Amino acid sequence: MTVGIVGGGQLGRMLALAGYPLGLDFLVLDQSTETPAAQVAPSLTGEFSDPKLLRELARRSDVITFDWENVPVDALRRHTRGTRIAPPLAALRTGQDRAAEKRLFERLDIPTTRWEAVASRRALERAAQRIGFPGVLKTRRFGYDGKGQVVVRDAGALEAGWRELGSAPLIYEELVPFDFEVSILGARSASGEIAIYPLNGNVHHGGILRVTRAPFGGAALTRAASGHLRRVFEHFRYVGVLAIEFFVRRGRLVANEMAPRVHNSGHWTIEGAVTSQFENHLRAILDLPLGSTRARGHAAMVNLIGRMPDRERLLAVPGLHLHDYGKSERPGRKLGHCTLVADSATARDRSASQILSLVNPELGIVLPRPVH
Amino acid sequence: MTVGIVGGGQLGRMLALAGYPLGLDFLVLDQSTETPAAQVAPSLTGEFSDPKLLRELARRSDVITFDWENVPVDALRRHTRGTRIAPPLAALRTGQDRAAEKRLFERLDIPTTRWEAVASRRALERAAQRIGFPGVLKTRRFGYDGKGQVVVRDAGALEAGWRELGSAPLIYEELVPFDFEVSILGARSASGEIAIYPLNGNVHHGGILRVTRAPFGGAALTRAASGHLRRVFEHFRYVGVLAIEFFVRRGRLVANEMAPRVHNSGHWTIEGAVTSQFENHLRAILDLPLGSTRARGHAAMVNLIGRMPDRERLLAVPGLHLHDYGKSERPGRKLGHCTLVADSATARDRSASQILSLVNPELGIVLPRPVH
Repeated sequence: MTVGIVGGGQLGRMLALAGYPLGLDFLVLDQSTETPAAQVAPSLTGEFSDPKLLRELARRSDVITFDWENVPVDALRRHTRGTRIAPPLAALRTGQDRAAEKRLFERLDIPTTRWEAVASRRALERAAQRIGFPGVLKTRRFGYDGKGQVVVRDAGALEAGWRELGSAPLIYEELVPFDFEVSILGARSASGEIAIYPLNGNVHHGGILRVTRAPFGGAALTRAASGHLRRVFEHFRYVGVLAIEFFVRRGRLVANEMAPRVHNSGHWTIEGAVTSQFENHLRAILDLPLGSTRARGHAAMVNLIGRMPDRERLLAVPGLHLHDYGKSERPGRKLGHCTLVADSATARDRSASQILSLVNPELGIVLPRPVH
Repeated sequence: MTVGIVGGGQLGRMLALAGYPLGLDFLVLDQSTETPAAQVAPSLTGEFSDPKLLRELARRSDVITFDWENVPVDALRRHTRGTRIAPPLAALRTGQDRAAEKRLFERLDIPTTRWEAVASRRALERAAQRIGFPGVLKTRRFGYDGKGQVVVRDAGALEAGWRELGSAPLIYEELVPFDFEVSILGARSASGEIAIYPLNGNVHHGGILRVTRAPFGGAALTRAASGHLRRVFEHFRYVGVLAIEFFVRRGRLVANEMAPRVHNSGHWTIEGAVTSQFENHLRAILDLPLGSTRARGHAAMVNLIGRMPDRERLLAVPGLHLHDYGKSERPGRKLGHCTLVADSATARDRSASQILSLVNPELGIVLPRPVH
């Protein structure tokens, strides 16, 4: 049984590493040969929209999935006829466009930020007037890790924001003064079985996820987030792992965005849950029984960004698990992550702070207190 | 950093899968192209003693290790000059010869069975007379999974045993009427750090390991077994993971054999310990800090032998982890294993029995009660 993966990043790599024990084979399609996934699985190299490569991927795969959102939906649909694709392309298309995502949230009664699509300088002016300041101007497509975003503090800053991003379709949305951020992840299998992980508490810095802790947030928040996730699952008759990120303000969830794939905030599940998000994504798209999403203790995940800390110092931290993606160093690039599972939330947070002081002492990241 | 692995079986495969997250690369040498390890790592194909291949392996590897005992020690030493080999070849050589192993145990005051080397029909007669019946006639080399062994119930059975095995150097040893079997595993790093796993309780059937449960056996047994392991570690200034199997009779350990490598009875450590035996073997041979060997709950490992059970039925068992080695079916062949981690020994044993009834109902294996 071969799983084709469009995109050969770290998510594809970890999918393959989770799938080998299940007896699966993999085939990766990426523009570059030097990808994290191509180091551990056979690969095809070329454009994501190349009809010949997509047809070959389809021919050699039993099911096709992807490891990032920005794959060309139409080419994928056209050139992979006869081979199942999961998650569904409708969810992928929605995840590619912030405006479509916001409309979906509204349609499914999932609270989100106030926002407006912006196609001209005039429209931006009007949107800012209606929504107010501070706001965030975001490209509708191709944004990730804080890229394609400008915070607009006041009317005087609109012009600069427009000059920076105005060549692409945009949205303007309110900047939510949140207390903390969470995300919910779950899997839905082809036959409709659903398994949802405990809620994750996330800390971003410079637009990039730095730390995830799980379980995080009380029963009420988890229940609310799970309800939202289930509605998106049912809407798309979704297959695979799906993530939704939320701001939390005064105990209420405000949906920020969704990702129709395995997600950075779920990396802790490799050691911290009975079944990892990667294995459950594979089980889901192959319509196998889903594995338990129960947490095993209290997990913290810390991203390794830009430069790789000394491996020996990292591995000397008791209980630390290293995940090196095999990439070369570059500022802002996700090179790996490490995970720690503790017996209590307090011990976990102590260890997470210790790792942060090893990895990113210069950022001075302070972890919000867990909510119960 | 590239680790060369001589032997491309499931142990090599699981070493590679444990090593990718550490950022390591692998190169496997095996006689066949269709090995479990070659499915997940680049490989060289040819005889284990081929000077050209060994030189290439050495040239492309930072350290060389092996995934089974029966590699040709002299060829390995001669043709890999300049590249470190771990575990040490002296330990490998001892592990290849049952007589050398027994002598080592005796020299290190590790209680073992009464035994005698047997090189002729006359010598067999004398050994049987001295040691008595029932006994076991074993080839000194190349025995595994019960192969190369004949139980000798009485003097009348000596002739048949000799005819079956007498063309090779043998030992004759007493058949120990044990209460149960255990094994101890640990790692020693190049700089002398030692980490030892909890004791494993093993159940064999037809000479093949079927079930391992861990932790198993009380503190006294664990302490005694750890002491024996430490003496072997120090004797060889050992580097890597080492396993010793024991019979337990009336609460006392009797050493059966050792394996200078990762071991089937340690597979439970992937999910059931903080750091797996595979990762600790790699950490040890690369002289990185060893990971915690602490058990996470109560683990049971069940081997999948001869034919692969239906994957969907297996994965429907709550909390079950499947490890498929990617081999074709053949009677007596280890095709994979599954692991389950429970909150109590009782829950673990219930699940292990459930898995056994799925996997090998015909064997009617009964699990001995855990010792505390």
